[in-house]
Amino acid sequence: MEHAGAATESPVRFDTEPARYVHWRLEVEPPLARLVMEVKEDRALRGDTPLKLNSYDLGVDLELADAVQRLRFEHPEVRAVVVTSGRDRVFCSGANIYMLGSSTHSFKVNFCKYTNETRLSIEDASAHSGLKFLAAVNGACAGGGYELALACDEILLVDDASSAVSLPEVSLLGVLPGTGGLTRVVDKRKVRRDLADVFSSLGEGVKGKRAVQWGLVDETVPLSKFAARVPERAQALATKSAEKAGPGIRLAPLGGAYTDEGVEHEYVSLRVDAADRVAHLTVRGPEAGEPAAAADMRARGSELWALRAFRELDDALLDLRFNRPEIGVVIVQTRGDAGRVLAVDAALEAARDDWFVNEVRHHMKRVLKRLDLTARTFLAVIDKGSCFAGSLFELALAADRSYMLAADEGPTIALSAMSLGTLPMSNGLSRLATRFLRGLPEGVAPGRAYDAADALAAGLVTFAPDDIDWEDEVRLAVEERASLSPDALTGMEANLRFPGPETMETKIFGRLSVWQNWIFQRPNAVGEKGALTLYGKPERARFNWTRT
Amino acid sequence: MEHAGAATESPVRFDTEPARYVHWRLEVEPPLARLVMEVKEDRALRGDTPLKLNSYDLGVDLELADAVQRLRFEHPEVRAVVVTSGRDRVFCSGANIYMLGSSTHSFKVNFCKYTNETRLSIEDASAHSGLKFLAAVNGACAGGGYELALACDEILLVDDASSAVSLPEVSLLGVLPGTGGLTRVVDKRKVRRDLADVFSSLGEGVKGKRAVQWGLVDETVPLSKFAARVPERAQALATKSAEKAGPGIRLAPLGGAYTDEGVEHEYVSLRVDAADRVAHLTVRGPEAGEPAAAADMRARGSELWALRAFRELDDALLDLRFNRPEIGVVIVQTRGDAGRVLAVDAALEAARDDWFVNEVRHHMKRVLKRLDLTARTFLAVIDKGSCFAGSLFELALAADRSYMLAADEGPTIALSAMSLGTLPMSNGLSRLATRFLRGLPEGVAPGRAYDAADALAAGLVTFAPDDIDWEDEVRLAVEERASLSPDALTGMEANLRFPGPETMETKIFGRLSVWQNWIFQRPNAVGEKGALTLYGKPERARFNWTRT
Repeated sequence: MEHAGAATESPVRFDTEPARYVHWRLEVEPPLARLVMEVKEDRALRGDTPLKLNSYDLGVDLELADAVQRLRFEHPEVRAVVVTSGRDRVFCSGANIYMLGSSTHSFKVNFCKYTNETRLSIEDASAHSGLKFLAAVNGACAGGGYELALACDEILLVDDASSAVSLPEVSLLGVLPGTGGLTRVVDKRKVRRDLADVFSSLGEGVKGKRAVQWGLVDETVPLSKFAARVPERAQALATKSAEKAGPGIRLAPLGGAYTDEGVEHEYVSLRVDAADRVAHLTVRGPEAGEPAAAADMRARGSELWALRAFRELDDALLDLRFNRPEIGVVIVQTRGDAGRVLAVDAALEAARDDWFVNEVRHHMKRVLKRLDLTARTFLAVIDKGSCFAGSLFELALAADRSYMLAADEGPTIALSAMSLGTLPMSNGLSRLATRFLRGLPEGVAPGRAYDAADALAAGLVTFAPDDIDWEDEVRLAVEERASLSPDALTGMEANLRFPGPETMETKIFGRLSVWQNWIFQRPNAVGEKGALTLYGKPERARFNWTRT
Repeated sequence: MEHAGAATESPVRFDTEPARYVHWRLEVEPPLARLVMEVKEDRALRGDTPLKLNSYDLGVDLELADAVQRLRFEHPEVRAVVVTSGRDRVFCSGANIYMLGSSTHSFKVNFCKYTNETRLSIEDASAHSGLKFLAAVNGACAGGGYELALACDEILLVDDASSAVSLPEVSLLGVLPGTGGLTRVVDKRKVRRDLADVFSSLGEGVKGKRAVQWGLVDETVPLSKFAARVPERAQALATKSAEKAGPGIRLAPLGGAYTDEGVEHEYVSLRVDAADRVAHLTVRGPEAGEPAAAADMRARGSELWALRAFRELDDALLDLRFNRPEIGVVIVQTRGDAGRVLAVDAALEAARDDWFVNEVRHHMKRVLKRLDLTARTFLAVIDKGSCFAGSLFELALAADRSYMLAADEGPTIALSAMSLGTLPMSNGLSRLATRFLRGLPEGVAPGRAYDAADALAAGLVTFAPDDIDWEDEVRLAVEERASLSPDALTGMEANLRFPGPETMETKIFGRLSVWQNWIFQRPNAVGEKGALTLYGKPERARFNWTRT
């Protein structure tokens, strides 16, 4: 069933920087910046499908994700970003269909997940960094192109009698606008659901005043006034945010070592055991001497443990998702001094009003969300030498289960102020609140160390085997888990990890994306005569008309 | 891909009554009732798969749905219901796997949707009719069996050293507990997500005290004390609800006429045009002489328009779902006098404290929810002779779009008090509030009639073509819609119909069920070597290990 397409050819690397961008230009002119999309047709990440009409693949999107990240860390002087196209008459025509059509199911799903995370990172920057985004739609804006615009705070559409915003996926491809499009139209922009229905089933989209009336864009101006109007609106957006005390902090390349056996970073290792389909993910805590004052943290820059370790973790998670598709179980471990982790957390809490510290904290949050959304089983193994404390205990809380060794001189765990809401999940709750939906039990609080018995009694870990049972119990858990249907596990985990409230963010991953995953399996889309398969060919799709 | 299994053989009829039940006994002993499941192995709805070990198929579930409905209408004197098994050592072993394995994808999905609606109807009865449910689990309680127990207010488990509650779907079948199981474990019972993970991947389940400690059941008692404890707990549940002034209202058989061309009821017609894959659903408003006082409404009983018309609508929707799988577009029309509909609504509002009127109102709500959840396109066509007012205007609000004729002496629409929250969707909001998520516009209120121009200006209809364009515009909309991928439409509608908040109910349909639908398409479950396919055979499932 899974056809190995171009997508499985070579590993994907996510670490990049503006000087290496192929498809985007980042132009900074404080308080504004411009992110200009100009996709190089012949520079697809994989294969030789030309990326026509500013259509994107993963290589394009990872540059965008990097650019948003760098704006937050490296350019605190920027308060509004214009997202636009460097091409005439086309803003962006969305994800490249031929790339999608030739990719494996697993790649399709992971590609969409990643692009969704990138869109959400734009909204996160707006909400938490005062970095406002204006989509300056200077031409056709279709599918994923409009979904990119939807992730921005405002959308300005050129009124040139031809440029429209559209979601042609349903009508042209037999799939959904799966990068948040359907959700954002009704939940973010609050377009009336019947108008959204018309819009989303209309290949040609909506332009001009009607697009404004329906709420699909915020303003439309004639081409002759467009160039002048863009900076006006961007400046107005910029005034909504407070100035920050620069200078920015350069994000140094991570420089990991990638092999068939895994990924080695300074603080994070991912070691894979391909035969057992198990990986070991180890995060090492800070060394002595981590700075505590905001100015000192800024001076440390991207070498700051809290920033570097979580950037490395992010990279390892993406490597796992894209380059190690058969790994089913990830054993999560930590190594280091719990006290130092707690000191880092305390420093990050105390200096939370500093813009850089704020960025570090939100970055940690986003990386942990990436873990929550990674479709592999995570088992936290809390053994001797570990440092599951505070922000690193989030790894255990994010895991599907945790095993803690009960032994003399055994490991302890601890909460910190950061456990209580600094690092919310996509559902808006802390992992602790999500774990204890009935309310935090008595005795669950920062400020103390829990040994295995205490942690078990408090409900902070799942199991606490003693020395005698430890190895067998962990080994059996891993073996049993790795033997189960990977699809059933993906579905189970996606349901159990997100109890409690739903947000626009969880709706995108929990409702929209899952319908898209379903459609991506359906013969009406991906079969021999499916609409996605036949896109661009003279033959028309042939549907099985049964409604499901 | 779609193999026509036993499930497509003969049409399903949903109208039943206790005297005709095959698999359940309804025993009434006020203030208690007992619903006793004793599935007849040789009485499967279709095919000859024996329904062993109190496993169920659609025929079993539709009797349960009927019983819950009848308890509400026919037995107001009952305030607590014991759900139990008539078999020794087995409570219920869930949906019959061979039935599922041999069904088409479309049937599987619709079967699960229906059983989910039945579970939700139990919770609705508890919340709104003071009818509390006790699951008296007197033996093995697996999969859908435990999901049935989860729908009850309380679960009492026998402690006999063997009886366990379990969700073995993931481990044994490579699918999910898709009848709300995963959602209710963490969201209703608020079981810790790591314990839920252990429980849901453990074939043998959890029994005795551990089941209580984990929150999976409320109490466990030894077999010797079980028979005495059940009525004790049920009586305690009954005291939580107020007494109602009986007597009950008998629900007369609907007696519809079912043909290849459609369904004919007194107030509801469904006429199908198989060649165009279009159906016409027409609801006729009340005649003159509908009673307004509660006592008179009770005297009218199940002939009351508001009850009968919505029961017929429910039946037509189920017929559409199960017996007309290729119908893609449903044109919704009404015929009658808008003033009479508004008078009915006013009477139902004024007498809302009457138990029977309360039941009628909640029944209308449930039927409209069924429409929201029906995976077909609904286009409301508001033409001359129609009566889209108040509760019947909900049909237009539930539709994906509405077309209203703009003409002299043309139709009008109207809201009523019932438009404002009496008939909430699964998301907890009224259809009006869901439509206007930004807030109700000025001038949108009950108490006036809107002609097409007014309705369009107020945002209450999607389009208002005039006489000249009317026929073409409606025809084109239907044709265009019917030409699109049925899968993409299902996914699109499921996203656009539910903007705004999510509830446990929407999570079941929007997250859990969709993951299940996805898994139901995956070779790891339904392929030749899939776990569902090979269940009960000596051969073990062979998985493609790629994680998605």
